[in-house]
This record gives sequence, structure tokens and C-alpha cells, in this order.
Amino acid sequence: MPLTSLNLSINTDRLLNRLQELGRIGRDTDNKLTRLAASDTDKAGRDLFVTWMKESGLEVYIDRIGNIFGIWYGPENRNEAPIMIGSHIDTVINAGIFDGCYGVLSGLEVINTLQEAGFIPSRPIAVAAFTNEEGVRYTPDMMGSLVFAGGLSVEDALATVGADGTLLGEELERIGYAGTEDPGFLKPHAYIELHIEQGPILEKMGFPIGAVENLQGISWQRITIEGVANHAGTTPTDMRRDAGLAAARVITYLRDRANDSNGQTVATVGTIDFKPNAINVIPSLATFTVDLRDPYEQRLQQEERALANYLKELAVSEEVSITTEQLVRFQPVTFDETIVKLVEQAANQRGLQSKRMTSGAGHDAQMMARVCPTAMIFVPSIDGISHNPKEYTKDTDLEDGANVLLDVVSNLSGNHTI
Amino acid sequence: MPLTSLNLSINTDRLLNRLQELGRIGRDTDNKLTRLAASDTDKAGRDLFVTWMKESGLEVYIDRIGNIFGIWYGPENRNEAPIMIGSHIDTVINAGIFDGCYGVLSGLEVINTLQEAGFIPSRPIAVAAFTNEEGVRYTPDMMGSLVFAGGLSVEDALATVGADGTLLGEELERIGYAGTEDPGFLKPHAYIELHIEQGPILEKMGFPIGAVENLQGISWQRITIEGVANHAGTTPTDMRRDAGLAAARVITYLRDRANDSNGQTVATVGTIDFKPNAINVIPSLATFTVDLRDPYEQRLQQEERALANYLKELAVSEEVSITTEQLVRFQPVTFDETIVKLVEQAANQRGLQSKRMTSGAGHDAQMMARVCPTAMIFVPSIDGISHNPKEYTKDTDLEDGANVLLDVVSNLSGNHTI
Repeated sequence: MPLTSLNLSINTDRLLNRLQELGRIGRDTDNKLTRLAASDTDKAGRDLFVTWMKESGLEVYIDRIGNIFGIWYGPENRNEAPIMIGSHIDTVINAGIFDGCYGVLSGLEVINTLQEAGFIPSRPIAVAAFTNEEGVRYTPDMMGSLVFAGGLSVEDALATVGADGTLLGEELERIGYAGTEDPGFLKPHAYIELHIEQGPILEKMGFPIGAVENLQGISWQRITIEGVANHAGTTPTDMRRDAGLAAARVITYLRDRANDSNGQTVATVGTIDFKPNAINVIPSLATFTVDLRDPYEQRLQQEERALANYLKELAVSEEVSITTEQLVRFQPVTFDETIVKLVEQAANQRGLQSKRMTSGAGHDAQMMARVCPTAMIFVPSIDGISHNPKEYTKDTDLEDGANVLLDVVSNLSGNHTI
Repeated sequence: MPLTSLNLSINTDRLLNRLQELGRIGRDTDNKLTRLAASDTDKAGRDLFVTWMKESGLEVYIDRIGNIFGIWYGPENRNEAPIMIGSHIDTVINAGIFDGCYGVLSGLEVINTLQEAGFIPSRPIAVAAFTNEEGVRYTPDMMGSLVFAGGLSVEDALATVGADGTLLGEELERIGYAGTEDPGFLKPHAYIELHIEQGPILEKMGFPIGAVENLQGISWQRITIEGVANHAGTTPTDMRRDAGLAAARVITYLRDRANDSNGQTVATVGTIDFKPNAINVIPSLATFTVDLRDPYEQRLQQEERALANYLKELAVSEEVSITTEQLVRFQPVTFDETIVKLVEQAANQRGLQSKRMTSGAGHDAQMMARVCPTAMIFVPSIDGISHNPKEYTKDTDLEDGANVLLDVVSNLSGNHTI
């Protein structure tokens, strides 16, 4: 698909001002930003977003799981499947202002820019804000898009009990965002999500645009190693059954495999606990988690098998018993090659170097890929920081990303001007 | 020194009964045994021990730190330096009945046996129970013998604030064991301590007697590794500064060195903590402890230096910063070769195989070695278990150990019978 340029650009000031304004909603007395899903602060953020959409003449719909859609219909396209731009506006605790919000507000900005240019879309353009992407208050994360894509029933989702004991369904009712549309009522022609990278690659390598071609599969396991607690002084090395040592061997093994994977597999041991956790007692129990990720399912399975085999050998050599529990398992997602190429072309025509890349984090796009051709656009995150007040992307990068989104969406939605 | 045999044996029933009787003191409603230093239950144990000593005609002395001494003087030896047999009768929380008590009650049993045989000692024989060997309530452990040996002033020791907020001096007053003798008022000619091994070596290797020739030096460090917290999915392996991985590399390094030390050095990482300790976040901070032990000071220092050098290399290769804090440092103790040989000869004459060995745990003997020729005798601990209700030594092993003690003490104290 060749890319046609409209020689349009988004209104950078409007986008940046809206990001700042939304980012002021949900501040506590310490100025920390928190808009957990279906909370009062989430309601305030939603209200502001809906106000902007209505001011833009969009038709606003809320579905039963609280996802918000603003649709810009052209004069003769009401029967066409829309191009959907989406992300989320809920946040983690003590968040930055860009995660999710940048994608949603850029979607609105793209529509505003096209409206002002007199663009006549051959397909409707929709902007979506999905409920509970962060998953802090209600599990699982990416819940709104998961329900929208049919991966979880709306009844089960609404019955979710939150970390604070609340019911999601009741909270959505309370804040006025328990909508009436059935999830999936819209059938998008394509879905695009613009997002900050939340990782260091683009900044470190000097690329302003990431053309995201896939999204890592995730395998989370909890591993428990049981040895024998013994005195650190009186127990000779060859009589030890040291659960802590065995855990350390697993951690170094995983890193050595990741080093051998040419940058594809990543492995992280983020939590650990020894028992009895005393200076002079050999650990009888070590519990830790393994976060394994790879963009290819076959290789992710291969890494899981390699770990399982290593654990078997280790149980014998260290005379410990080892059990594993799968906590999370997501298959990798491959995005739509046509849209990824459009992203590359759009960046290229604007003189922006783009890098094909893998998303290391989960996004609503991974759910939407189940129902329509989907891709993502990344912009650099300074120092890769996210889920933190220090989350930051330069204004010029925010502008460039939104302009690439503009070009891709205008092409996918018909590319007609008056 | 050739060993002379008296063809005497201890009264096994009396020893075992006293062990059981003392072991019944300090039981809670769940039948758990706890006699923390200077507590009410410690007082009850001390009272029983003092009663037995007085019934045996010993002169009982209490020094200012609460150490208890029972001295059996012969008709013409009041000016001679005594042979001292000692250990402790305070316990850990939920203890076994043998740790410490076995050595103290065997000392009394040896005296009783010699008395009943009409033995005339050329040197007085003293049995000692040192205050607060376990160090659970008041730090440091082995406090009573440390003060006795001049390593800590009695004033400082009495001013120690316990884990429960009490003052040791006040508690000793309260239970009636703040004595008047200055610590060190007795100058022993030699000190022998009989103790359960608290390790698995004798049982696993089939030796009934350990002739303890030295006691490991101990080096405790706390190591803190600081990296950078980053997202487990979005951060490529080569951009990670993973404090948890670095900690794991230290743990495996220490084990590999211990494996290469021919069973001399032992190294234990018993505690660990990651921050932020989240499944999908690379640890920014790893804190753990290292317990290094070796019976030779030169090699212990060599191991400390090797670790320090490894940490320097690791800080560079993993791009982390590492700080260490020394928590405890005890030099190894070498026991008196003459007495160790006496132990071997005594075992041999009784047809008991003995093994030269290193004490991996700390004992009052390590303090007493500062003031007089000292050695220890070990008997097997089933499964090496101690500080636990499952602590157990077979009756025959208890009997054999006390008989070896009898032979060594009778030789050291003159070896005269009527």
C-alpha cells in the first residue's frame, strides 16, 4: 500500500495542553498522580475526555465494561468499519502523564486535525479509551480490551473483586460509566495504538519512531526450592542441601541463556525469599519468580523447556526438591505487516528514522489484534522510565509520533480531502 | 603426656536423669523448652544445678556476670589452679535439652564419679555454667565466658539492653544471680568443654568422639548491591543493571570457592532481599549476608580478599555499585595440642574411634582459650540438628563422651586414688 501524504500536521500545542490538563486530574495532596480504574479520579479523567470528544462533534458510546468510544462519521461512511485509535487513561499509583493518555489524546488530535483540514473519511475514525488497562485495582490488566475482543465475558469482568474489596461492576455504575453497548459492538477495520516505549531502546539508539511489529509472549512462574536448614558453621559444604544456592544457580542460568539469545529472550527474577532467612542458617526454602519473554511462541516454549530441564538436573545435583507454578502465560502477538510498513513509510516521508521493534510491555493492542489488523507506534521514553512520575518523552517526539499516526490513519481511512 | 586409666566409668543413669530433669525446666504450655539468659526459667535451671552441686559438697561461687562455679577441692590442693569443665545451661527459644547442659552436667558427673571412687585430686576440679552463651536475649553471645576471659568489661556487659528492653544487670539482680566475685577470679590450669557436635560429621562418618583441635574463625558481612529498576519486558538484557543477578553471581562464586577449599572454608548466604521485589521489575537493590568460616586466620583473610576482589570486578561487569559492611569478625581459635591428644588417647583406650575436627559453632571454650590451655570433646548429633526440639544424641554416645571427659580430667587433675 503506497502512502499518500496530505501535508497535514497535528496541532502540537493542543495535544500537549490536553496531556497536561488530563495529567492534572487525580493528584493527591503530595501532587502524586493516581487514576485507578473506575475510581473517582478515573471518572474525572473520563469526564474531561468525553467533554473534549463531544466538543469535537464525536458520537460517544460507552459499552458495558466501561470502554469509551468517540466516533467521527463522515457524510457517507456510517456503514463502513471504522479505523480505531485507542489506548487507556487509567493509571498506576503515582504515575506519569504519558502512559496510555498519549495514545488516546493523539487519537482525538488526529481526528481534530483531519476535521479542520476538511478531510472526508471514507471510513469512520474512532478513538477508544479502554477500561482498566493497568490492572492495579482489578485483575487482569488490559481488561477492557480483553472483554471487547471476546477474551473474557463481560459478566465475569464486572464481577471482579478489586484489591480494595470493591466490585468493578458496582464501581462503574457508581461513576456513571456502566454503559449499555455490548462489548465488541464496533467491528474495526484496523486498530492503531500510539504509545511511549516504556523502555530504553529508541532513546539509547537514537530513533524517534518505533514501528512495532510484534509483542512479546510472557511466561511467569513461581519456583519453590526446598532444601534443608542447617547450621552455617557446622555443616560441611558437601553435606549441604542449600535452597538459596540452588535459586542463585537458576538466576545465573537464566541470564546466561538470555545472553545467548541475540537479544530476543529476556529473563528476569524480580522477587525472592529465603526461609528461615537467618545469617547463620543454610536456607531450607527459596521462593522466587521467573519472568520469561520472547516475541516468538516457539522460542518461548523452548526457553520454558530448557528451564524445566535445568531444574530437573539441579534437583539431583543439589539434592533439593523443586516445584513450579505457572502464574501467567500470554502467547506472543504478531502485528499486521501492512500497517507496520505504513508506519515505516510515514516516518520515512517525514524524515524520521524508524526502528522495527518488539513491544516488551503489554498493551490493549495485543487484545485488539484478535479482532482486526493491528499495529503500534512507539516514541522514545527518556531512560526507559515509566509507571513513575519521572516518565518523560520530549515534546518533539510526542509531536512526531502523533504526526506519523495522523498519516497512517488518514491513509487507512480513505485519504480524501475536499 | 601418657594417659593413665583409672578403670572408672561415670554413672550413666544419673547423668541421663539429670539431663532429663534439667530439660523439664522452662517448658511452656506447648511443652516448648526456653531458658533465655537471666529469665525466670533460667533462674529455675540455675537453682537446680546449684542444688546438685551443693549436694555434691562443692563450693559454689557466682561472679558479677552471673557465671556459676562449683569447685571440688581436695585435702591439699587449695592453692593449685583448678581444672575447669564448663559450658552453659541457658537455651535458645524452643530448644533441645543437650546443647550446653550436656557439658555442664557431665562436668558434675565426672566430679561425682571421682568423689565416689575416692579419687584425691592434686588440682581442684571446677564445673562452670557460663551466663548467656546463646545470646538470644542479650548480645553478644558467649557473653559470660567473654567477660570471664577479660574480653568485655563486666560493667559494659551488665549494661546490655536485651531484645525485650531489659537490662542484664537488673535481671541478674532480680533472679538472685548477680554475684560478688570478679570475673576471672579463678585462674584455671586447663579448660575442657564436652559438647554435642551440632553438625552432621561424626554421625555421618561413624565416629563416636570428636577431638576438637580448633574452632572456625567467622566473618559476617552484609553486602548491598545497587542497580537500576527497569521493566522486565522492555529492557534489553544488555541494558540491564540487575542487582538481583549480581547477588546470584556472588552466591554461586562463594560456593565454587568453598568447593575448591578441600572442605576447609564454608560460605553461606542465609538472608536475601530484593527491592522493589516485583515480578516484572528488574531489582534495583539486593541486600544479602555472607557467613564465611575457616579454621585458619590466614585462609579466612584470603577468602575475604578474594570476595572483595570479585565484588570489584562484578561492579564493573554488571554496572552496579556494591557496598559491604562487616557485621561480625572472630579469629579462629587453635586449641591446646596436649589436651587434644589426651582426648584421642582416652577415646582410644576405651576402644572409641575419634576424629580430629574443627568446631563450626561458637562455644565458651573459644573464650577460655584466651586464659588457659583449652580443648573440646564432641559427640554425634543425629542429623546435625541443634537449636531445635529434635536435637538428639544417643545415650551410648552421651555416656562415651562423659567417660572420655572423665579420663582427661582425672589425668589433668593428678590421677591419684586412695
